[in-house]
Formats: sequence, C-alpha cells, structure tokens
Amino acid sequence: MPKKEGSKLSRRAWITTTSGVIAAGLVRTQSDAIKLVAQEAPTQVTDPTKVPGRMVSELGRRAPAEQPRRLMRTQALSSSSRTPLADLMGTITPADLHFERHHGGIPDIRFEDHELLVHGMVDRPMVFKMADLMRYPQVSRTHFLECSGNGGGVYNRDRMPTQVTVQALDGLLSTSEWTGVPVSTILREVGVKRGASWILAEGGDSAVMSRSVPLDKVMDDAILAYGQNGERIRPGQGYPVRLFLPGYEGNANVKWLRRIEVTDRPTHTRDETSKYTDPLGDGTVRQFSLTMDAKSVITFPSYPYVLPDRGWWEIQGLAWSGRGRITRVEVSTDGGRSWVLAALQGPILTKSTVRFRHLFEWNGRETIILSRATDETGYVQPTVQQLWEARGPRTSYHQNHQRAWKIARGGEVTFGLGDLV
Amino acid sequence: MPKKEGSKLSRRAWITTTSGVIAAGLVRTQSDAIKLVAQEAPTQVTDPTKVPGRMVSELGRRAPAEQPRRLMRTQALSSSSRTPLADLMGTITPADLHFERHHGGIPDIRFEDHELLVHGMVDRPMVFKMADLMRYPQVSRTHFLECSGNGGGVYNRDRMPTQVTVQALDGLLSTSEWTGVPVSTILREVGVKRGASWILAEGGDSAVMSRSVPLDKVMDDAILAYGQNGERIRPGQGYPVRLFLPGYEGNANVKWLRRIEVTDRPTHTRDETSKYTDPLGDGTVRQFSLTMDAKSVITFPSYPYVLPDRGWWEIQGLAWSGRGRITRVEVSTDGGRSWVLAALQGPILTKSTVRFRHLFEWNGRETIILSRATDETGYVQPTVQQLWEARGPRTSYHQNHQRAWKIARGGEVTFGLGDLV
Repeated sequence: MPKKEGSKLSRRAWITTTSGVIAAGLVRTQSDAIKLVAQEAPTQVTDPTKVPGRMVSELGRRAPAEQPRRLMRTQALSSSSRTPLADLMGTITPADLHFERHHGGIPDIRFEDHELLVHGMVDRPMVFKMADLMRYPQVSRTHFLECSGNGGGVYNRDRMPTQVTVQALDGLLSTSEWTGVPVSTILREVGVKRGASWILAEGGDSAVMSRSVPLDKVMDDAILAYGQNGERIRPGQGYPVRLFLPGYEGNANVKWLRRIEVTDRPTHTRDETSKYTDPLGDGTVRQFSLTMDAKSVITFPSYPYVLPDRGWWEIQGLAWSGRGRITRVEVSTDGGRSWVLAALQGPILTKSTVRFRHLFEWNGRETIILSRATDETGYVQPTVQQLWEARGPRTSYHQNHQRAWKIARGGEVTFGLGDLV
Repeated sequence: MPKKEGSKLSRRAWITTTSGVIAAGLVRTQSDAIKLVAQEAPTQVTDPTKVPGRMVSELGRRAPAEQPRRLMRTQALSSSSRTPLADLMGTITPADLHFERHHGGIPDIRFEDHELLVHGMVDRPMVFKMADLMRYPQVSRTHFLECSGNGGGVYNRDRMPTQVTVQALDGLLSTSEWTGVPVSTILREVGVKRGASWILAEGGDSAVMSRSVPLDKVMDDAILAYGQNGERIRPGQGYPVRLFLPGYEGNANVKWLRRIEVTDRPTHTRDETSKYTDPLGDGTVRQFSLTMDAKSVITFPSYPYVLPDRGWWEIQGLAWSGRGRITRVEVSTDGGRSWVLAALQGPILTKSTVRFRHLFEWNGRETIILSRATDETGYVQPTVQQLWEARGPRTSYHQNHQRAWKIARGGEVTFGLGDLV
C-alpha cells in the first residue's frame, strides 16, 4: 500500500475528480500519531446533490445495504434467534434484533385480554389487566439479558470450533431500556404474608414456562416490563408483559407473564429441574444458579473478519455482570501472557453491558487475543480451565469463561480457544 | 365504578372464569396506599397456552395492535416526520420513530462511495472514505436531538390551538445512543492551522445543507456519527455519516456529511441567514443561537387522552437541555400557582432527555398542569410570557417555554396554554 498522504485538493478538484483518494489503512508514524494512508479507489458515479431525495415515511427504514439479521435455530417448538453482536455498536440492541429463546413459540396475546393473577401467600389475591398495571408508577432501567445457555456451543473441549461467529457463539445476549412497574409495588398491593420467601412466575405460552425466584430478588429490582427501548415490548419478548430480573439468567425472566404465586419455598418446576441446572464434577448439581457471572466477549475483530493489513486496530467488545457494575476489562494480545486495561465507554450501569475498547498494533504475526472482565464484587471472568475445573464436563450452562480469537498471518480471524486448551 | 376489591380466586377459578375481574381505576384509601378497584370486564376467548406459538424470525416484529407511527408533513422537497412522544416510554427513541426534517429529501448514498473532504485552514487536506472513518477509535454517547423549530406551532398567541398532540407540537425531539469518531480526532489528523475558529459543515443532499459551527464546540464533543442505537445510522438520519453536535439545534447536525472546511469566521450560508435566525423584538436578529435551552414537555396526560376517573395518575414527561444535565423538573397541577419537584429517572446524562414523573391525585375539577425544567447552569425553562418578552413575536424558533395541558371536568385533556396567555 503506497504511503501517499491525501493530496491537497481544491474544492473544485474534489467535486470533479473521477477517482477517489483514500482507502483504509493506518500506520504508526515516527511522531506516534495515527496517520492515514492513501490509495486510488473509484468514487460514486451519481452525485446525490443533483437528484431530489426521497420524502419522509411513517417509519424510518434501514439502508438497503444495511440489513442485520438474527441467526435462527428451530427444533420443533423450541427455537432461538441470536443478536448479530459483530454488526452492532454501542450497547443498545435494536428491539427487532434482540435475541429470543422460546420453548413453545410466541403466543398471540391481545393487550386488552391479558390478565396477571397474583396469589399464594398474600393477603389479597388479585387479577390485574394490563390497563391496571400501566397505571402504577413506572420505572425505566437499562439492563442486559442473557440466556444461561449462551456460549454453550464451545463447552466441550473435544469439539471446539474455529469457524464460529460471535453471533452464533454468544448472540443470546442483548441490552435494552426496560420500562414497567416494580414487582415490589404489586406485591405491596396484594400484601405478602409472613414466611413467604419465593415466588413462582408462570408464562402464558404453550410451554407454560414456570420458574421459581427468591422473594428478596423480586422485592429488590424486579420489573413487570411492558416497555422496551421506548416502545411496547414485542411479542417475541413477552408482550404484553414479562418478568424482568436484572442480572438473572434469561429463562427466569418469564415472558407473557400470567401468574405470580407467592410461596415459602422453590416450586421445583419441570423447567428448573430437568433443565437450567448445572451438574458439577463431583456428582452434585448446582440449582438456581440464577445470577449471571461477569463475562466479556470481543466482537471485533472476530470470525470471519480478515484484517486487511498490519497496523492499528481497535479491539472492541462487550462486558457485563449480573452482580452489578463492571469495574475493569483487560485485553491480552499475546494469548494471555500479558494483559492491559481496556477503555470502558461510560455510563457504566449496573447489570448492563459496557463497551470496551483497546487500540492494538498488529505486527502481522499470528497471535491470540482475549478479554476478561471484573465486576464490582471483585469477581474475575475465569479461564476456560478454571471454569471446567469448577463445573466439570457435564453442563453447557453459564459458560462465562474467557473467549479467544486467533489472528493468522494472513489476517484471518478464527475462534482460538481450541489453541489454549 | 364499584369499589369491590379483586376477589380471592383459586387457580382453577381463574383459569376457567369467563369474565375478568379488574379494570383500570385507582383510589386513595384511608391508609394512604394505592388500591386497585375492580369491575367486570370480558376476558380472552382463546387460551394461548393451548395453541403452539409462532417460531422465531430473522427480525422481531411489533404486536399487530402496537403500530406507532411518525406524523408526516411534506411541502415540495421540504418534509418532516415527528416522533410519537405520547406512545413512548423511557428515553430511547426506536430508530424508525426518530424524527426527521429534510430540506431536499433523503439522498440515496452508498456506504462505499461516500467521501468526506476535510480542508480549509488545515495542514493536510484529506478525503476520507467510510472505511477510513470507521477505523478510528470510536465513541458512543446518548444524546437528544431537537429541531430548533420544535414547538413553533404555538408561538403565535393569536392562534393558540387546543386540540394538538404532543407529537404534533413537540415531536421534533428524539433520543439515541450515537456512535462514531470524535471530530477532534479527524481534525488532529489533518492539523488545524493557527487562527482557525469555525468550521463549515456541508451535507450531500440535494439541499446541500451547510452550517457554520464554532471550532471550540467541534473540538469539545462533536461526533462523526455512523451508528444509532446499536445499528448503522439510517438514511433518514444521514447515512452513512452525519455531524452530531450534542445539545445543538438539529439543523446544524448536518446529515450525509461530505465536507468540513476549517475557517476563521462563520460562512453565513443561506441556511443560517435566511433561516435559523431569531428576529428579536428590538429589530435586531439573534444568529447562531445553536445551543438548545432547557425545556420539558408533559407527555401524559396529553391531548387527546381522557382521564376515565378521578384519583391517582402519574404525570410523565421528558426534560432536556443543550447546556448539560437536567437538575430538576417541577410540576404544577394548579395552573402554575404552586410547584412540586418531580422524580427524575436516572441515569441523568448530559445533553440527553430525562423522564420525570409525578404522582397526581386528580380531584375531578378542571385544572391546568405544567412542567418546568432547570439545568445544571441554573437556567430555568421560561414561561411563554417571559419568552415572548425576550424574543418578540417574529420567530417560531427555539420556543422552549413551558407547555400546559388543561384537564376538563369530564377528564378531557387539551392543550391549555391559551388559557394562560
């Protein structure tokens, strides 16, 4: 690539030129500044300033060339769709790209028909219509949501993939501004009896998804969410209302919520005994592993990106923790031998994703890049060896270990964890 | 409305009942708690737990009954679309509902064709392709964007409307997480010459929108934005790249940015002399009134909503300031005679919208509700009289005065500012 700097162009010259001046490529100069390197490239043929533009429409549309899509998997009634993490910037996930995971498909529920029963160990069992719920004082909070099965595709060291995208591997993660009524408000309304310590949350889908949640958690920060990123929550997210449990595994955030039963013990439903438990190496089982541990993923560069040239590249990714705020993210560009602090994009919110960035000068040699997150409790994202030692080989849930991407000499990026185990 | 509380229902009774129990309505009880009042209402006919749900799709869809739309106005090539503020929650505006204001329509620009020329009082004039811009270190920040003409529809006291929605009046306001390259990075790259103090920003639309911006502002927090709410910025927002100036009037945030010229004075383009200036009462003109002053609007209740009953209602709205953070929002429920502090939903970000809420007990009598915002500089949103006194009657720009909604005895809500002038 020629190291010609952008030539001095008159306004007229720029308008009338038929060939462009600059294409991608950054090199480090002696002055340590980032400098742009030029090369010839074709420019556009039609001048958009000479053509009347399109008028407004009721809904804005994406550019024809920008059509991010979720990655779908369907097996009978069980299906999922994964967020295209490598295509996204910042932290907010557009609602139509938020991941979904369903055990019985998306039910068709009308807003005005839906009812939520709150009963069990309460003074006044009540049924709420949506109009009732929406009249209570509201709260909005930005949080991540992650399926506990996220990343489960690489839990088995014997079949570690290399050609896997961050979407396929970790796309069961999204972030939204959620709006709704604190569950604590509703439970104060019905009056929780002494001795109560759990709730059962039941969904109105054909799987009748049912999960037990500690009452302390529910009273702390749980939301009956009917809004997502400013608009009404979508059917795939639980329309008209879902239970939202900041920092808890996705499955417990019961969608299409139709029943809350206050209890004095976990109900041990099918959905929390046959699934969503973690067999440990010693033959015992970890149950109600509800809080998502700290985790981070590098979203750029990642498979199938090919770095076109050596030089400066901004490594980017997301970090999050169900325990609170992320306090640091470290990046290694030498396979884990040394680590440096990445920059964190504020505001750093509790139980939400934070984007981290690290400017990396790739010298053109093969290497492996990793990230590891630390949260405000001091929890550090483990290596895959540490996680497997703690959990044994029999669970694919809660695989929050460090990920790795290998950069080959040609710039090809592949999933590189297999090289580290 | 009968004051029967939700009756104690067995699980079975709830499932098999053919009539609902609760509908909207909150009354204050002697114990000062909020209590729900019941009435008969029909329930849904089909049980969604008995029907297999819909499988996932590549893009999530809104519920059929939830179809928010922008309000469009088109006059020749000049057009606008307004955000449905009353339909939204929280602070984020979905990208397809973000307001638009175009003077020459939306140009059709291809990502790989677009070029940005940076020249004028610089050491190294350069042309950047999008791939070049995207390689620089990135930043993401959540900010409001507001057209300086927002609210201009009620600047004339002689034709103050009553039947106007908050969307029609103030819908040229939206909030997004914007991602891009700090303009300061690019200006350091080209090297700004001594004596430079302004830039000219020029758009690639058929209006060739051109605005002058102080260099200090550009170096402080301006962004070359190519991302919005996680995804690539949409054509209606300036795809592939716009100038984003946090807190500045919308028009200066030049879309489809194709040229930055560094200058030592404002260029006084057509777009900042024939328009976007504020004639004052004394015959002089306020020019480069770029910073949006503090403002707030109540989004609920607002026209055409009708409060179905007296009792507790959560007044809600948005407040923002181009000068920094909102520090307080006060609400009056007696036409401005007395004011109380509203609750602010954190995190409160600089130059971004904050949602405020105030629980209001409506006694069934006619009244007028207002809000007023104060920002961290101490600036207080003025009354309409104060604003007109300062600006005179000849400008509809920057109408950030307090808004008012009148609640009639029957619960009908109308724009009420006419009653206060």
